[in-house]
Parts: sequence; C-alpha cells; structure tokens
Amino acid sequence: GTRIIGPNCMGVFWAPSGQDSGLNTLFVQEKRLEIKYSDYSNTVLLTQSGAFSVTEIDRLQNNRLFKAIVSFGNKYDVNITDLVGYFAGQSSIDLLALYVEGLDPGEGRQLFQLARQIKKPIIIYKSGRTEAGARAAASHTASISGSYEVFKSACLQAGIVLAENIEDHYDYVKVFAMLARKIPSGNRVAGVVNAGFESTVGADELKNLKQAQLNPETIAKLNIINRHGMVDTSTPFLDITPMADDHMYADYVEAVLQDPNVDCVFVAVVPHSVTLKTIPENCHDQDSLANLLVDLSKKYAKPIVISVNAGRYYQDFVSIMEQNGLPVYTDIRSAIKSLDRFVTYHLAK
Amino acid sequence: GTRIIGPNCMGVFWAPSGQDSGLNTLFVQEKRLEIKYSDYSNTVLLTQSGAFSVTEIDRLQNNRLFKAIVSFGNKYDVNITDLVGYFAGQSSIDLLALYVEGLDPGEGRQLFQLARQIKKPIIIYKSGRTEAGARAAASHTASISGSYEVFKSACLQAGIVLAENIEDHYDYVKVFAMLARKIPSGNRVAGVVNAGFESTVGADELKNLKQAQLNPETIAKLNIINRHGMVDTSTPFLDITPMADDHMYADYVEAVLQDPNVDCVFVAVVPHSVTLKTIPENCHDQDSLANLLVDLSKKYAKPIVISVNAGRYYQDFVSIMEQNGLPVYTDIRSAIKSLDRFVTYHLAK
Repeated sequence: GTRIIGPNCMGVFWAPSGQDSGLNTLFVQEKRLEIKYSDYSNTVLLTQSGAFSVTEIDRLQNNRLFKAIVSFGNKYDVNITDLVGYFAGQSSIDLLALYVEGLDPGEGRQLFQLARQIKKPIIIYKSGRTEAGARAAASHTASISGSYEVFKSACLQAGIVLAENIEDHYDYVKVFAMLARKIPSGNRVAGVVNAGFESTVGADELKNLKQAQLNPETIAKLNIINRHGMVDTSTPFLDITPMADDHMYADYVEAVLQDPNVDCVFVAVVPHSVTLKTIPENCHDQDSLANLLVDLSKKYAKPIVISVNAGRYYQDFVSIMEQNGLPVYTDIRSAIKSLDRFVTYHLAK
Repeated sequence: GTRIIGPNCMGVFWAPSGQDSGLNTLFVQEKRLEIKYSDYSNTVLLTQSGAFSVTEIDRLQNNRLFKAIVSFGNKYDVNITDLVGYFAGQSSIDLLALYVEGLDPGEGRQLFQLARQIKKPIIIYKSGRTEAGARAAASHTASISGSYEVFKSACLQAGIVLAENIEDHYDYVKVFAMLARKIPSGNRVAGVVNAGFESTVGADELKNLKQAQLNPETIAKLNIINRHGMVDTSTPFLDITPMADDHMYADYVEAVLQDPNVDCVFVAVVPHSVTLKTIPENCHDQDSLANLLVDLSKKYAKPIVISVNAGRYYQDFVSIMEQNGLPVYTDIRSAIKSLDRFVTYHLAK
C-alpha cells in the first residue's frame, strides 16, 4: 500500500542528475534557500526536524553535498530504520547524516542492528539529551528521548559517528561527504600553516591522530623551498610564516603530501597576508592559493582539510575550495577535530 | 626608561575617539583587515600571537568592540601582568581578552593575584595545553606551557573566564563585551524560536541557567499574540512556528522581556521563513525583525542573545543586529553556552 512520511515534516528532496529530473517538495522559497548539488553530491540528510534541514543545507551550501533530504517528523508510518535501510542501498549515496530527537520503542534496537550491517558512514546528532531538552522534544515532535548515555554507547558499538553538538554535525558531514573517496591509510598527520598559533592550537586538538615523523628526503625538499630561511623544517606542523607566497605555500603542502610517512594533511591559512592571492580581486587567478590547493587535492589521494579563519571579505577564496571538493573549516580546531574523527572511523573499519 | 613590547609581535592598536587620533602600528594592509570600532568599543585584546589577533578581529569585525589591541609576543620586557594591570585601570576598557601560549616563571602567580583584585571580566584562551601543543608553542614563542590543569584551577580561583577553545574565546568575548552594561540579576532564562528543534537543542545546553517559570500574566499576553493558535504558551522556550511575522516575533520577545520571572532571554531565528523581513531587500526596513529586536534591546535592561543559523544570504540581517549592540551567534548551542557563561560569571561576583 501507500507509505506515509510525516506528519509534522517538511517534505523530501532528490537532486536531479542526467535524465533524472529530481524531486523537491520542501516548502521553502528557492530564493531564500537554494539547495546546491553537483554530480558529486553523495549524502542523504534524514531529519526529524524540517528546520534542522534548512539550517544544515544553508550552512553547507557551498559544499554541494546533498543528493537527498528527507524530513520525517513524527514517523506515523515510515520510520528511521526504513529510511536508513533504503538509502544505504542506493549506490549514489556514500554517507547517511541523521538528526534525531527521539526513538520509538524498539526503533533504537532496530537502528543499531541495521547500522552494524551497513558499510557506509552514519553520522547522528541527537538532541533531547538532558531532562530540559527531553521536555522540549516531547513538545516538538512528541518524542521520547530516552537515556543519552545508553544511546551513546549503542552508537559506539554499532560504528555510528555521534556528533555531540549541532556544529560538530555540520563539521563531520562535511569531511565524511567530501573525502568519501579519500580513505586514509593511517593516522600520521602533517600540517602547513602561516601563523604559529595555529600549529600550537592544532597540536592541542590531536586525539587519535599522531604527528608524522617527516622523512629526511622531505626535510631536504622543504629546506630548498625555505629560501627565506625562516621555517623550522624539523617539525611536522610547519609554520611557514606570513612571508610565504601562493607558490611557496603549495610547494610546502606538496612536499608533505609526497612523504610516505604522512597519511593525511591539514592546511591552515590566515589569508590576510599581502603575499597571498586571497582577496576577491585575485583569488580566482589560476595560480592563486585556492586553485593551487584544489590542484593538489586532485593530484594526491591523501585526505586534506583546510582551515581559513577570516571574515566575509575572504568568502570567495573559501568558496573556490569548497566548490572544488576541499572541506574548509572556519578554525583550526574544527578542522583538526573533524579530520581526527574521519581518520579514526576509517581505521576502525 | 623606555619599555619594550615584543619581540616577535605585530604591534599595537588604540581606537581613535573624539579629539584622540588613536594609534595603529599593526602591519596588516587595511584593505585586508579593517578594524571596526565605535564609541561603544570597550575591549582590549592582549595576545601572544599577532595572527591570533588578526583572526579574532576579523571574525568579530561587525561587532566593533575592540578599543585596544596589543600583540606582545616573546615578552622580553613588558609582560602579561604589566599589560593587564595597565588596561584594567583604563576607564574606557570594560573587558580584557587574552590569548596566552605560555607564562614565564612567576608570571602566572602574579597574573592570578592581580586578577583577584580586578573587577572587570578577564577572558583567557591558553593553547599549548597538550604535550604536542606545548612543543609547538616552544617553537613559536619559546614559551613554557606548564600544566594546563593547574592553570585551569588557578583561573577558576581567580575568577578568570577560561575559554576551552578558540571559538569559545570569540563567543565569550562577544557576549561579555556587548552586554557589559546589561548585568543579569538572576539565572532564569526564557527563549523565543521559530523552529522547534532549536528549543530542544537550546534546552540541552543549559548548565547554570534555569528555565524560567512564566508569570500567568505573561502567559495571558502570549495567548493574545498567539492568534494562529499554534504556539504552546505553557513552556518558557516558545516555539512560535514559521508562521510568525516580524511584529508577532517581536511581540512574543517583548512579553517575555517584561516578565518579572525572567532574567535573560535568547532569540533564535531561522530566517528562511517567507513571513520574515530577513532578506537583503527588506531586512533594513524600519519594521524588520532585526530593527525590532534592536529596539527591544535598547528598551529593556535584560541581557539578550540571538542565534541566526543561516548562510551568506542572511548576513545583512545579522549585521544590522551586530552593529547595534546585539550579540548574534551562528547556532543556538553557542548562543546559549555564551549566555550561560556570562550570567554565571556575574552571579558569582
């Protein structure tokens, strides 16, 4: 018979591709919320709250990663397990991203059993974690929130990536979706930054990632690039100073990417340095840092994350990278944390 | 004799005001980093890393809150205590914001003793917390990082607000600076949102804040505003649905602000709703939600924080509020967390 999604939901979206004209029943004006997608869109967003999907779509708009979106609301008929099972079987979907307020009796057990069989990453953010939150969820989607500690342990056992807050959900979806074809082979990380404090802050955020020991050949290469003589090439988190220009920056990153002792790389850019083509007038140049980093990410299979900690003036610079497959974060902390989570997941598989 | 700031620093800034022409020795192109200030700028940023100040200035640019900035680097002569003592004595400074990588022997003890005597809020983010971070700090500013746990306890005892990460530093500086004249009288919070998930997520983030019990008179007022009959007025975190227009939104917020059982308020806006004047073409109207909320914040003494979880298209809407004294956050979690921290600090005073 006919299956029903909802009630108290906002509709569904399926991105058009090739001959398939797609589907969009979300009731939000297109002017107010453009859903950007591309041939590389590979993620389904399953959400109990319609507004949650609106905010996540908008915050991740430049990344163009949603192939499908389902706002499922109060789950009168179709429930979370139905949706997870369906999308896990779709070849165009690499990643399942969920927002959950509460699970019906038995629904949690079903979900965790199913998750164990699914080879694709599942990222969940669950609200209604505290007593006050549970009361609010009951008033919103009539959900019974259950014990968050039990939920957390079950996620861990089922291999589900649990985002502890809403911003982590955006951050993890970004890295898992955009690097879905860049499976890491180990947890040794190196980084290139043009601000010393970012190497310090980045090092503080390492959890399961380990600082790589650079190969002597790499250090020899770095010393050739280091023609100002200002860079300490003995550490794997290179502070290349604000004097580095676009080409030097990219050369440092490439040397590190080529090192067999390095499994993944972060690049943090404070784009205010005058030596860099990062402003609206020159960031689109073919030899700008954004385009050079995009080229490197296409040339090498190792996962790369980027941090650009800056205001509105540098959004074009960020957009070039985001629209070309690089996960860009607004600060080094969230970049490293997301990379750490991504690598940890894949090494545990 | 002459005192020396630095070496390995980026200079100092003092905002012009009235007859005072100010001072700016920071060596960053003005085009690439405009430092916005106003007659209300009331914060000094003291930072061991010049690049940290660049990123924080840029991220908080719309808020126009820095009166002074000092990049102090390796502290050959002038140290942190000298700077804290000096700026604490300046009548134009309400808030001291610090980024620290490491303290010299004895400097920490001096700082914590001094902090106990200072009545102005001091917010610190300290990197070099882990072993890897400490090594990076040593290579950056030759700092000895020391034990982070000891540092944390000392901050707690001295009444210093410790930001656990870089984004919390931005978030806390915003709320403490912008609400410096809005000292809370209690920890009872109410909220108005147009997306149910935000009341759930917001409730989850309460720590020392408590959900207010709305006065029966307030509930009566809310029931009059609630002419669509969709809003559950029995809870202090009102989900006013996407049907609310600008005036209804503001009316709900005003009713809550007038309640004697409410000490502080958060407002979360998902601005994509067609009923709201939040897009570039209409957000500047005098009766737009942004301007109505600004009016309310001028009319009432209670602290208000705002969350606007959206992309680039809604930045004008956000800017109107930020430039007129409202602390705006990109998600409900950081809004509530910052308000919680702000209220907790003032109630402990």
